[in-house]
Amino acid sequence: MRRFARSATLFTAVAALPLAAARADEGMWTFDAFPTARMQADYGWAPDQAWLDRVRGAAVRLTGGCSASFVSDSGLILTNHHCVAPCLQDLSSASKDYLKSGYTTRARSEEQLCPGQQAEVVSAIRDVTGDVKSAIGSATGGAAVKARTAAAATIEKAGCPDTATTRCQVVSLYGGGQYKLYTYRKYSDVRIVWAPESRAPQFGGDPDNFNFPRYSMDASFLRAYENGKPVTTPQHLKWVARAPVEGEATFVVGNPGSTQRGLTTEQLAFQREVTAPLNVALFSELRGRLITAMAQSPARAREGKEELDGIENSLKVYIGRVKALSDPAFMGKIAAAEADLKAKSAGNAAIGNPWGDVATAVTAFRDIYLPARFVTPSSDLYGYAHTLVRATAERAKPNGERLPGFSDSALPLLEKQLLDARPITPWLDRLMLEWSLSKAREYLGPDDAQIKLMLGKESPEGMAARLVSTTRMADPAYRKQLWQGGKAAVDASKDPMIVLARKLDGRERELQALIDERYSGPLTVAGAKIADARFAAYGDANYPDATFTLRISYGKVMGWTQRGKLVPSRTLIGGTFDRATGSDPFDLPTAFVTNRARIDSSKTYNFVTTNDIIGGNSGSPVIDKNGAVIGAAFDGNIDSLGGNYGYDGTLNRTVVVSTDAIQEALEKIYPAPALAAELRGR
Amino acid sequence: MRRFARSATLFTAVAALPLAAARADEGMWTFDAFPTARMQADYGWAPDQAWLDRVRGAAVRLTGGCSASFVSDSGLILTNHHCVAPCLQDLSSASKDYLKSGYTTRARSEEQLCPGQQAEVVSAIRDVTGDVKSAIGSATGGAAVKARTAAAATIEKAGCPDTATTRCQVVSLYGGGQYKLYTYRKYSDVRIVWAPESRAPQFGGDPDNFNFPRYSMDASFLRAYENGKPVTTPQHLKWVARAPVEGEATFVVGNPGSTQRGLTTEQLAFQREVTAPLNVALFSELRGRLITAMAQSPARAREGKEELDGIENSLKVYIGRVKALSDPAFMGKIAAAEADLKAKSAGNAAIGNPWGDVATAVTAFRDIYLPARFVTPSSDLYGYAHTLVRATAERAKPNGERLPGFSDSALPLLEKQLLDARPITPWLDRLMLEWSLSKAREYLGPDDAQIKLMLGKESPEGMAARLVSTTRMADPAYRKQLWQGGKAAVDASKDPMIVLARKLDGRERELQALIDERYSGPLTVAGAKIADARFAAYGDANYPDATFTLRISYGKVMGWTQRGKLVPSRTLIGGTFDRATGSDPFDLPTAFVTNRARIDSSKTYNFVTTNDIIGGNSGSPVIDKNGAVIGAAFDGNIDSLGGNYGYDGTLNRTVVVSTDAIQEALEKIYPAPALAAELRGR
Repeated sequence: MRRFARSATLFTAVAALPLAAARADEGMWTFDAFPTARMQADYGWAPDQAWLDRVRGAAVRLTGGCSASFVSDSGLILTNHHCVAPCLQDLSSASKDYLKSGYTTRARSEEQLCPGQQAEVVSAIRDVTGDVKSAIGSATGGAAVKARTAAAATIEKAGCPDTATTRCQVVSLYGGGQYKLYTYRKYSDVRIVWAPESRAPQFGGDPDNFNFPRYSMDASFLRAYENGKPVTTPQHLKWVARAPVEGEATFVVGNPGSTQRGLTTEQLAFQREVTAPLNVALFSELRGRLITAMAQSPARAREGKEELDGIENSLKVYIGRVKALSDPAFMGKIAAAEADLKAKSAGNAAIGNPWGDVATAVTAFRDIYLPARFVTPSSDLYGYAHTLVRATAERAKPNGERLPGFSDSALPLLEKQLLDARPITPWLDRLMLEWSLSKAREYLGPDDAQIKLMLGKESPEGMAARLVSTTRMADPAYRKQLWQGGKAAVDASKDPMIVLARKLDGRERELQALIDERYSGPLTVAGAKIADARFAAYGDANYPDATFTLRISYGKVMGWTQRGKLVPSRTLIGGTFDRATGSDPFDLPTAFVTNRARIDSSKTYNFVTTNDIIGGNSGSPVIDKNGAVIGAAFDGNIDSLGGNYGYDGTLNRTVVVSTDAIQEALEKIYPAPALAAELRGR
Repeated sequence: MRRFARSATLFTAVAALPLAAARADEGMWTFDAFPTARMQADYGWAPDQAWLDRVRGAAVRLTGGCSASFVSDSGLILTNHHCVAPCLQDLSSASKDYLKSGYTTRARSEEQLCPGQQAEVVSAIRDVTGDVKSAIGSATGGAAVKARTAAAATIEKAGCPDTATTRCQVVSLYGGGQYKLYTYRKYSDVRIVWAPESRAPQFGGDPDNFNFPRYSMDASFLRAYENGKPVTTPQHLKWVARAPVEGEATFVVGNPGSTQRGLTTEQLAFQREVTAPLNVALFSELRGRLITAMAQSPARAREGKEELDGIENSLKVYIGRVKALSDPAFMGKIAAAEADLKAKSAGNAAIGNPWGDVATAVTAFRDIYLPARFVTPSSDLYGYAHTLVRATAERAKPNGERLPGFSDSALPLLEKQLLDARPITPWLDRLMLEWSLSKAREYLGPDDAQIKLMLGKESPEGMAARLVSTTRMADPAYRKQLWQGGKAAVDASKDPMIVLARKLDGRERELQALIDERYSGPLTVAGAKIADARFAAYGDANYPDATFTLRISYGKVMGWTQRGKLVPSRTLIGGTFDRATGSDPFDLPTAFVTNRARIDSSKTYNFVTTNDIIGGNSGSPVIDKNGAVIGAAFDGNIDSLGGNYGYDGTLNRTVVVSTDAIQEALEKIYPAPALAAELRGR
């Protein structure tokens, strides 16, 4: 599954740098720079502007970290099951387990709000490179970051005076080579419509995740509401329940979260040596803690499931990255591309040696990374406190002087996520907190000043137990009270999570300033120069690294050869019955057993395409030449785990659940007659 | 802590290759090749043969994976607390927790047997290189391994006709450059005499493990018995309770378990890319599973503690290795040494290109590694079944035709470990089994033939629960019955663990044969050639990689500089009180609190030396020029975690608990007057 977990760390925003020229089927293109000529040359056909505009108007970004599309004129949204799983988890209780049973509705009145979820559709893209670059001017270090942040906040505020229905975001593309203002029509009331029992999308579980052949019903439907009513969405994709044709062209339209294909070799070395192994160690241990905790009771198994799925998914990605970063052939190509660009840029005085500047910044970052990594404990409850402490302090400043993430344009979503009621599972929150506090102490050491500030004389276990059992952060009314009371109310609060967040806030700001000065600032300047070098060397034959903004990728339905064996491009629904063992996670979904006689085994279930995607693309519509949706992308194959760093068309594949299979589910397995009719346009 | 967990995998035996010339204080020297001239040059003094012989006769190897020494004439053995922790765990119950309370005896009749433990003292070392090499002759691949194994079995059997009191082992040194027959006087009745409460050795817990300054009472005493009586050991070390003198020469005498300082760059690349990250992922998850399981009840916390300590210790080692393997400077030195040796060997036709042969073998190994790694589930109960299935089959063959580990010379210890009664903790065994089965499926994939053979249609969780709840392997009488009944009894058994072990046995033999043919065999031949190249280039100025056989290292009492800050060479007992926070693992040992007024705070507690050690050296006596013991080595500092691959005298340190501190404990903290008197020689 390819959900994109956006991270709240201090240093993610600036990683994306510009890339070398893309090869066949490679690329996550922006809608204002689709490579028409290249696709025309490769496929004998390419979409025109009207096609692109139509598709763009139906593409939905889900703020939970997924992609989606409108598929009816009444705000109906197609996405993946794993994108709505957090919502199903939030709505479930001991008596109603929607992950286990699935979610079906007899009437629209049964469609329930998904806490924290917001749907966004791009309505305009405007180039603001000149404004941002001139605001930065010749500033360096922390001053460059400040200038860029202020310029973005000002542009966003001016662009979206109506914050109730619109959202503006300035996006840095090509690592600072371009800045664009994305304007979104936003829908902050998103409700769940239909989801199969989770055994169907999760058939094969973690063992089959990122693998193919695959048998997964990873599809669900949401609906956007406004003023209590479904929104009208004339610009939706046509739903066609059909099998894909081998070799046919496919488009994936969605929001790839983050790629790092433009990193310099120094940055990659840092990941190989430090961050990638660290992530494997941290998340492996968390996974182990959670697996055992969940085995203690059926209730815990239910309550922890969504979290575990996310962790296992991330872990597979990290392990794949370690593999890619350790592969001399894979890394050799990247080094060769860098060498080529350096050679082409030699003697260009305006460019200078930005690679050297990046190397210097990475060296400085090595000393700041671990403290920054561990300054924010992982816990939903702490997260609320952290947001309250920071946001109320930032909100009190002028818009242009705030930290990134707290501008006027960012506050409405932040407020929604802070105040929407959602259940907290105390044992799970405590487990997360205990893990993150103990790992902080492990990696920084018990004698570190930051650790002493964080823990005092408490143990991680004791502190986690105390905080979770005594905080009021689980209460939305109390959060609202502090939010409305502002900095004064937060400063006066004796809530232990707030107390801890206040205590760590100064250290976090200190680290942020260090990072801006020594790492993000230099990268902002060097990134723009590397971008200029790339534009000079390769023209516009490249695409920017992914930034969780709307992209389009083209490719085709095609299998691949793995260790000398051809992997066919599709599976059939009937294959599920052959693969089932009766044991978790290969046990048949209940409804598959019940309805076996009625199910058409020959329907295409999942298929693969050569489209270039990454986490965040989950739920993206897979669209045919006619602009009709023929599936929802939900995964990549195992080889695509190196996709963070590069694309290999011979091996990388997107995994899709077909509309044909979803239609079969709606009609025979998890019947939803009204929904099926709505999709048929009736 | 530096315990050495000997692994039962199919491919550990052949890793040790010869090294380049050692630098100051570097080296784990064999007793028949002590670098007298070099030490004389550096220190102005070196031990003579009589000194070496005397010390050797007092040095004890503990088969559980530790080192030790006789310190009285009545078989009294000094070692680390963490070396006897498994014994304390085995002897504990819900009503008596010896890890928590410590172990003290009022009379020798209270000294209890440690299950599976055996003490061994080297009585002779004989060069058998000619015999083994001529048996191998010009054989290659699997035939070379077979010939070597058969020759060793024959030599060992002839060398030790009395298997009740002696043990013979042929050891491959310098990666096959030399073979030596080690003869041991063995004592298979080893009893626990004294251990402090585990809070004292484990003060600081995992956070402080492999760190310094340190405050740990990691010492314990055992006693060797024979025929129900303490053995007489005139050749023991003199016990001197004193503080070390800054800069004084120190010797560490013990059994370093395994180093890999002679690996070629190809072998190191394989570790960096495959084994090291895999170990981090696997053991991090296991750690997490165990931490949560232990938090469920005080009983589980007690029962799982020893296992968790071992896992956390191993994990720190693996993380340290990943760091070393990813450090360009560290690896650069190794590559330079290899290049130097190649250059010096160029044109020597007798040597040829063994590095190329190693590279070919590593490439072949890449395909076999994962299946071999996961063919043996991790579980004490499965371990018994695995031993029974294999040993009864091998025992039926002539001595020279058996697999390594099952020769007549190896069977007595194997039998003792199989049949000694020790408690099994079902939940823990199930946890281990579930983890290892699920990881096997994760890394080989659910469609792999070996996984299908292993799991059938069961889930790892279901299978683990079934096996642990229905096997009789926990019953020593049943194990004895099968052991005595031999292959026929084992073949007839319906015990589910035996059934699984029988099912996997064929696959394991198939993998073993593949490894011998493509990896171990070629390495045996290439290793001997690289050894010849090294002897030709550097003479005898080097030492063989560690092999869990007796070595001596010399060095001195000295602090070091860490990130620009001097770390002094010692801590004082009183520092414990300053470092205590009251929270686990920094809570004061109960007896420290109770006896605070009596304790002499100024006694040296722990100290560091430049001696070159590695896991397996735990419990090694630290000896002064006079041959008196002044401490027990129990750990290395964090920089020494790269010690597997190389030694850096500016950073690597051995961590020692002083005899002065142990004496203080025996007199005032955990009083043992008889023991204190025995140490004073009364």
